[in-house]
Amino acid sequence: MLPIEIREAREGDREAIWSIFEAVIQTGDTYVFLPDTPASDLDQYWLAPHMRTYVAAVDGDVVGTYILKPNHPGLGAHVANASYMVHPAAQGRGIGSAMCTHSLEEALQMGFRAMQFNLVISTNETALRLWERFGFAIVGTLPGAFFHQDLGYVDAFVMYKSLVGTGA
Amino acid sequence: MLPIEIREAREGDREAIWSIFEAVIQTGDTYVFLPDTPASDLDQYWLAPHMRTYVAAVDGDVVGTYILKPNHPGLGAHVANASYMVHPAAQGRGIGSAMCTHSLEEALQMGFRAMQFNLVISTNETALRLWERFGFAIVGTLPGAFFHQDLGYVDAFVMYKSLVGTGA
Repeated sequence: MLPIEIREAREGDREAIWSIFEAVIQTGDTYVFLPDTPASDLDQYWLAPHMRTYVAAVDGDVVGTYILKPNHPGLGAHVANASYMVHPAAQGRGIGSAMCTHSLEEALQMGFRAMQFNLVISTNETALRLWERFGFAIVGTLPGAFFHQDLGYVDAFVMYKSLVGTGA
Repeated sequence: MLPIEIREAREGDREAIWSIFEAVIQTGDTYVFLPDTPASDLDQYWLAPHMRTYVAAVDGDVVGTYILKPNHPGLGAHVANASYMVHPAAQGRGIGSAMCTHSLEEALQMGFRAMQFNLVISTNETALRLWERFGFAIVGTLPGAFFHQDLGYVDAFVMYKSLVGTGA
């Protein structure tokens, strides 16, 4: 298996990031972004000034991307939030896992004390298994908070992982 | 007791809204906004294009304000999020309660199916009692997610209320 290189995104990565984002949101079962989200919205959702954007490349090809940011400003800014996307054609090769490891290291280095996912879709078992493997716990259930393209309204979970010794 | 008038904010309300916002965040025990938040940040936090801003006036004086918005875009946009602030000098007069009633009616009228509060500080008993009285349930606990100015890291709650018949 080729090594996965993870680095901060550069201006030249925009097209590759969009092609991943666009492909991932088509299914309408993992992210809130509508399948017909225009490319111009990428600035707001994935390349905003308050977030850091990373890419995962295999053999020079960008096949994954993730963002890392404070989940809230000010007195809530010690809790990080991250989102990860892997191009459908590259799934199952450990790229999501590699990005999660990388993001937790980055978050710790940046001084975050915890990481929170705000809306993990309850039917997304791949993601749930992955986050639980990384030590994230389901700390909340949001009834019907996600409109799944195939299943209609389904629950979503809030997941949380402390990055410091005991307690967050 | 004088009647409380609640209406959408107008351009001329900006100064009154800021004076409430500025006074409320000084305590650093209810909202994430830092006590030294500059007035220019109000555009982003309270007057952004994707939110509706309301004011509560008593005898013509604006003493409270709240915002109402989708908690997420797209496939999560059927869940509303709201934040409320009452000027410290006007607290205890039912203004928060009146704004909450108003916001639930507005949310229902706008087609939202539920309302979610993302970060209710666990030590803010006044707010907790109020939201529970309005039918909000604690659906999640975020360990140490808020840095309380006096108490340090304290837990925060996610609260949720369905606005539709059975289930959200």
